[in-house]
Parts: sequence; C-alpha cells; structure tokens
Amino acid sequence: MAKNLTKQKDDYSKWYNELVIKADLAENSGVRGCMVIKPYGFSIWEKMQAELDRKFKETGHQNAYFPLLIPKSYFSKEASHVEGFAKECAVVTHYRLKNDENGNIIVDPDAKLEEELIIRPTSETIIWDTYKRWIQSYRDLPLLINQWVNVVRWEMRTRLFLRTTEFLWQEGHTAHATKEEAIAETEQMLNIYADFAENYMAMPVIKGLKTENERFAGALETYCIEALMQDGKSLQAGTSHFLGQNFAKAFDVKFATKDGKLEYVWATSWGVSTRLIGALIMTHSDDNGLVLPPNLAPDQVVIIPIYQDKEQFEAVSKVAKEVMEELRAKGLRVKFDDRDTHKPGWKFNEYELKGVPVRLALGPRDIENGTLELVRRDTLEKELIARELVVDIVVALMDEIQKNLFKKAQKFRAENTTEVSSYNEFKDVLKTKGGFILAHWDGTNETEEKIKKETKATIRCIPIDAKKEEGKCIVTGKFSNRKVLFAKAY
Amino acid sequence: MAKNLTKQKDDYSKWYNELVIKADLAENSGVRGCMVIKPYGFSIWEKMQAELDRKFKETGHQNAYFPLLIPKSYFSKEASHVEGFAKECAVVTHYRLKNDENGNIIVDPDAKLEEELIIRPTSETIIWDTYKRWIQSYRDLPLLINQWVNVVRWEMRTRLFLRTTEFLWQEGHTAHATKEEAIAETEQMLNIYADFAENYMAMPVIKGLKTENERFAGALETYCIEALMQDGKSLQAGTSHFLGQNFAKAFDVKFATKDGKLEYVWATSWGVSTRLIGALIMTHSDDNGLVLPPNLAPDQVVIIPIYQDKEQFEAVSKVAKEVMEELRAKGLRVKFDDRDTHKPGWKFNEYELKGVPVRLALGPRDIENGTLELVRRDTLEKELIARELVVDIVVALMDEIQKNLFKKAQKFRAENTTEVSSYNEFKDVLKTKGGFILAHWDGTNETEEKIKKETKATIRCIPIDAKKEEGKCIVTGKFSNRKVLFAKAY
Repeated sequence: MAKNLTKQKDDYSKWYNELVIKADLAENSGVRGCMVIKPYGFSIWEKMQAELDRKFKETGHQNAYFPLLIPKSYFSKEASHVEGFAKECAVVTHYRLKNDENGNIIVDPDAKLEEELIIRPTSETIIWDTYKRWIQSYRDLPLLINQWVNVVRWEMRTRLFLRTTEFLWQEGHTAHATKEEAIAETEQMLNIYADFAENYMAMPVIKGLKTENERFAGALETYCIEALMQDGKSLQAGTSHFLGQNFAKAFDVKFATKDGKLEYVWATSWGVSTRLIGALIMTHSDDNGLVLPPNLAPDQVVIIPIYQDKEQFEAVSKVAKEVMEELRAKGLRVKFDDRDTHKPGWKFNEYELKGVPVRLALGPRDIENGTLELVRRDTLEKELIARELVVDIVVALMDEIQKNLFKKAQKFRAENTTEVSSYNEFKDVLKTKGGFILAHWDGTNETEEKIKKETKATIRCIPIDAKKEEGKCIVTGKFSNRKVLFAKAY
Repeated sequence: MAKNLTKQKDDYSKWYNELVIKADLAENSGVRGCMVIKPYGFSIWEKMQAELDRKFKETGHQNAYFPLLIPKSYFSKEASHVEGFAKECAVVTHYRLKNDENGNIIVDPDAKLEEELIIRPTSETIIWDTYKRWIQSYRDLPLLINQWVNVVRWEMRTRLFLRTTEFLWQEGHTAHATKEEAIAETEQMLNIYADFAENYMAMPVIKGLKTENERFAGALETYCIEALMQDGKSLQAGTSHFLGQNFAKAFDVKFATKDGKLEYVWATSWGVSTRLIGALIMTHSDDNGLVLPPNLAPDQVVIIPIYQDKEQFEAVSKVAKEVMEELRAKGLRVKFDDRDTHKPGWKFNEYELKGVPVRLALGPRDIENGTLELVRRDTLEKELIARELVVDIVVALMDEIQKNLFKKAQKFRAENTTEVSSYNEFKDVLKTKGGFILAHWDGTNETEEKIKKETKATIRCIPIDAKKEEGKCIVTGKFSNRKVLFAKAY
C-alpha cells in the first residue's frame, strides 16, 4: 500500500483529509455534508464511547433515548436557545412520497405536517418537555441522564469529523434541586472530559470558561476543554453547560422541596462528539499516517509473518500465534495478519498508516535466532527483541507509548503557547507562529469582537487554573485581572 | 407504590400499555408516534445490544455508521424496495428556519433543498451506494458490516415498542462473492437471532421463511423468527434477508474474481429492533408487572432492608452490603435499595412491577436468626433462607429462573399451537383460542390473501424445521407438501 500522503508542512489541511480517507476512518457520502464512518474509524469511536460511558455510569448517570424529531414550537420556548440552534437545521415538512403520473417519486402534497418537525441539533427542548412529567418532588432529583445519539446541524462548509451536517455524540442532561449541585455537576463532567482527553486520548487540554459570546445558547456558563492541534489551531473538544433555571422556566419544571415549597429545577447539559476523532488525529499523527495512543487503538499490536513458502509460513505462524495468545492473555488487543493476499511491505505501510502502536514481524531467521522485530509507531524505532522477552517488553511499551504521546503533545503545546503584552505582539505571534496566545483582555464583548474581526483569533476560554495577575487589556489598556486564552480555532 | 394494573384477562392491550408506563420502560413523547425510552427500559436494550453485538463481532462483523438522510432518488433505484419503503417516511425539504415579520419562527422558503432527503426507514440504498466505492476485488469480500441506529417509518397507529414512528435497531449489511456464501450468512444471522431469543430472552421462536407477500421489499428470501405472545398473537422478532444481486445491480456493484472476471456481488441484510422489548414483555409478564429473565435484567437481585430505627438500619445494612458484595463477586448485578424515602412495602411492589428476578429482604429478626427472605419473581414463591447459603442459592436461581421462564413459554406455545385440517376448523380455532395454527396451504398468493381478508390471520412463516407431509390446502384442496404457520400478528 503506497501511502502518498501530502506532507503536513506542505498542506496540513490536505494532509488531514487524505489521512482520514487513506487510514479508512471515514469518507464523504452522497449526502451533502454527511459522512460515512468506516469500520476502523468507528471502532475508535466505540473505544471512546466505552470508556466515557463507564465514567458516566460510575458517577451515577443512566442512559435513555429521546426522539430524533422535535416540534418546531419547542424551540421557541427558550429565547436565546432558538437563536443559537433553530436556524440552520433539517426541517421535516411531509410524511409521504407518491408516484406522479409519469411514475416519478414525488413528495405527496397531501401529506404535509401541521407542524414542522426539526431533526434534533441538540435535545434540551424535547428533554425538558419530558422532564416536566418526570419531576414533581425532591425525591425525583437529581435526575442524571445521558444519551448517545446522532444530531444534525446544517453546516455550509464541512470537514470529516470536525464539522459535519450529521454527527454522533453523547449529550448529558441533568436536573438538580440546587444551584450549587448543578454547578458541581457541570464541573464534574468537565473534569471527566479532561481526564478522558489526557489519559485516553493522550491529548493535553486547557479547562476554562467560555466568554458570553461563545457560550452555549441558553446557558448561564459554558465550561470547555480546549486542545492545541499540530497546525497551531485550537479545537474545542468538549463542553459542559450550567443552564441555571432557563429550561426549567421555559418548560415549567418545578419540584416540591422537603418543606413543601415549589421551586424551579436547576439544569446542566454536556457533550462530546465524533469530533474527538479529528482532535485525536491532529494531536499525534505524522507524515506516515495515523498515530494512536494504545488506550484507544482498536489493535494495539499487529504481528506480521515473513515467509517464502508454506513450510516457513507454518513455522512462523506457530510462533506468531503463541505470541498473540500470550499478549492477549495480558489483555492486549492483538491482530495476526496472515493474509496471503498482501506482501509484508504492504502490510508494514498499512499498519503505519492506521497508527497501530506496536508492530511485530518475524521470519525464518527470527525463528532460528529466537527473535522478533519490533517497531513502535510513535517513534518508528526498530529493534530486535528476544522471543522470551516479548510479552514484558510489549506490555511495558503500551504504557510508555501512551505517556510518550502525552508528553510530546504537552511539549508541543508549551512551545506553542505565547504570553503577549501588546496587540502588535499578539498579531505578530498569530501571523508567524500561531498556537495558543495568553493575553490580558478587558472583559467586554466589543474588544473580543474587534480582535476576532481583525485577526480571526477568538477567546478560546478563560482558563480555570490561570494564575490571577493584574494587567492591562492589549487592545483597550483597561484593567484585567487575568490572561485569557486566544487562538484561531476549528 | 400501588400497582393498579389492569388484569391481562380483562384487557390485554390495556394491561400492556399500563405496564410499559408503570414499569418505567417508555412513554409517549410530545412528538406523534415517537417514544421516549426511559432509563430502565433503555438498560434492558443495552443488555440486548451488548450480547447481540458480541455475537456479531464473534462472527466477524464490524460496526460502522452511515448517514441518517438519504437522497430521494436513491430509493428509486431498486424497484420493489421503493414500493415497500419510500411511501410512509419523513421527508426533509428545507434546511433553515427564520423569524417572520411578527417574530414567529417559520420555515425559510429560500432554504428549500434541491433534492428532498428521506430519513432512513432502512439503509440498503445508502449503504449499497457506499459499497460501490468499497468493493472492487474478491479481496474486498466478504464485507460484513452492522450499524446500531435509529430509523423512522411513518406509522399511523403506534404502540410503545411494538410499532413506533422512530425506533432503534441494528441493521447488518453484508456483501459476498457467491450466492452460497450469502445464503449461509443469512441463515447464520437467523440462527444468532434465534439463539439470542431463546437463551437470553427465554422466548421460544419458530424459524421460517416468509411467503412472497410478506417478504422484505427487495429480498429474494426473507427468513424470520416468530414468537407467540400471551394473548395468542404472533410477533415477528427478527428478520434476515437474502437479497440476491438486486442491490448490487441497482447500484452497480461488481467485483473482479480471482480469474479476473467482473461479477455482481451477493447481498444480505438482517435486523432486530427495540420491538424485542415488547416481545419480552408479552412473553413473560403477569398481572403484577414485568417478569425479566436474569440474562437481561438490569438488576438481577435487589436487597431491601427492613428497620424501625437507625440502629436497626445499620445492623441490617451491614449484612445486606456483605451479601451484595458476595453476589457481585460472582458476577451478579445486585442493587441494595437503602433509600429512606420509601417504605419496604412500596419497594416490594416496585421491584415486582419492574421484574427483578430475585428479591431479598432482611430485618432485625433475620439478623438474629441468620436468615434472609427470598422471593423469586417468576413464581412469586417466598422462602426463608440461611445467610450462609444465600450466595449458592441465588447463583443457582439465576440459571433456574432463566430456564423456568423458557420452559413456561414453551409450554404455553405448545398448548396454543393447533394443527387443523379444514378451513372451518381453522376459523373456529382462531375465534375461540387464537395462537399458532398449522395448516396446509397451496402456496399461492391468492389463497393467502383470501385467508387474510376473511380471518385477519396471516402466514407467519413456512417453518424451516417443519416435517414434510403431504396434504391438501384447507381452502382450495390443492396439493401441499407441508403445513405452514398461521396466526394473527402484531
């Protein structure tokens, strides 16, 4: 398999698109802006789902399923929400097709819906319409629910995984008796996302708060995790919203307290999507293809036999299968690629492109010498190892590669984060280097908009862990008590 | 919790609807025909998914994801398919809303799609449009893919789980080099469904072939599993279709054979849906509520503490938690319900309603005597058991209850399956008893239609395992070489 990938430095965006296709992750479909997630890409998503779902359940959340289709009128109930979401959406207006006189299939004009239905862009409205029936008393709280579903947002410019008209995600929607509890939930879920990003995706993230401009439509506060991609742009990898009582008021959801009073419920919502696969790609991959952290790799180890004839194949296969079984017994995901339809060189390229963390190869000479050839994907280092040490070495490597990828990404981020003290410096850094920029900001929408308009950089977040430091806004010179995080963003 | 369930014998249909609501499985949403699957109902679906997904992967299938929205023109490509599916469907015609002069939200007439999009009722067309790009050579075959998704079919009369406008399902779509291989796949998947139904759902099924009338639109042969519900109606619980080369021809999917010839690909598709939850309910449940087989019960055991004061609560809780840990160590799903918001009697009713297979209760006297009270849901038998035997007894009960439910359902089916030799007898059995009826049929559409029209019974399937026996069609007296299975159906 010839890779022929565009080089990152020549055209990062082209490199990305080619990689997604060639590594068999996803492709465009015949439907504008909608992707097909191929089995290899989907298996990465399944790994992500499994771990996130485990974390959600561990913290008391349950899965459920709410309708795909939402009556148009539901969106009007929360004023700011409709502005943010009801505009670019897929609208179902009819429920039947028929043959016209020429035998062509047309929409049946007699089957027009009385009220149009919107394909969910997010489910706050339909869920809060339901919660009204589920919540009467403090005994019904907290209500901690998540769903794994598809959503549709009509996007004009789409890119595989990063921005597609339809995508897969999970959306958590919780209801609480108190403001404090809802805020604690919002923060807990942000921390779960950050933990997952760092320990599973090996992707360092900055936890922060969105500015009012960038807040979720209907939220009082949006928390996010932001990650720096290899091309110096930021990617919002997950959000957790404190919704206050906005949706409870819009859908009239009250509960009886222990004292018998009626109060509005406090809400949160939080989500991550298949966009994470885009983030994973742009954090670790290289000119040879995908690089996957062992914790999310569908295959952690691939074993490739080298042989000339049937006799050699059998001798090599015997050892390969023993190694596979030993590694599997340690809980590793191991594939033995004994297909005779492709040559070893083709397979080497293929698994490099697909980012398998460790590749083992063995031929007749290895059998004689009691060795195997090991190549780790993150560094492409090759070494000959002893047969009897293979399990120990590979098991240890899983951990080492996972950590190395995180450290590498952390180092990259550190090198590409710049603190600036003037607007000129800000613009200069953006132009020459990109990356994260920390700068003082006066806290106003106007300044934020001005910077965005002039530089295309936006405030990614107000970092939660930022040290308090007094200073002056780089644009207006007004007082600021901490630096915020700017970048151009996906 | 007062159950107040309608009795099965008084109104089975009402009993069903009430049970679904009261056991917290699902409810109707504000969107016509679309249900909300509540956490308890969804957790049963998750158990079903996990086991089926395991079986699919074990037999070499991979998951993927294909778009929700399908261009209208795709449906026209396979002539019989469009007749079966493109009629009652949700049609997306616009991609934007806007505010009108009065501030109301309306569909933006300027945002009309050039070609309407259909929300998938099933995905053969979009998938075969994709397979055209994926399949070139025999090396690409077999292609064994499944997806777990939502689908929409516009239904006029809906019932929770049994028939809803939107439902969840899995749909497998495979491509093969030969007819034999495709038929073997179709049969393999039917057997997987049957095995799952019998060993996980404890629901006996008849495997068979659909008649031409009842075949999937676009299939050469539809295999199905049919189960008898408690009210004497049949429920189609899963289907597996041999599609021949119909979709390969419609979407022009050819592959190069080893000899370099170009041939059309052979196809199958197969699916089960959230309808299985309806089948599960109507196979085992009773006037006290749901009865769940241990293999699919979200909670297999619930432990309920009985106490008057804090001291008693602590003593009882200590033992309850020990028991819980011991049972969990055996791999059982155990819940200790120590909520102080509800009384024991309420909890007993609640878990009966929710079908938890085994309920353990213990109070201060049990602590003194070293006992626990055990009630099994399938028989409602109550016994006092010794503390030290609880693990052995409960572990053994899981297996026993699973088998007992299957045996009971099998017995019910045997008692409600009647072989008839005349049309009068046929009509008489249908009227007085219902259930499965085995009768000779001449193999023609006309006779099948006549019987359907006159009795509302349909041919559920031509059983695969039926013994060959010559006879005469009960309607026309023409020759028949085996009896087929009739019933009224969901």
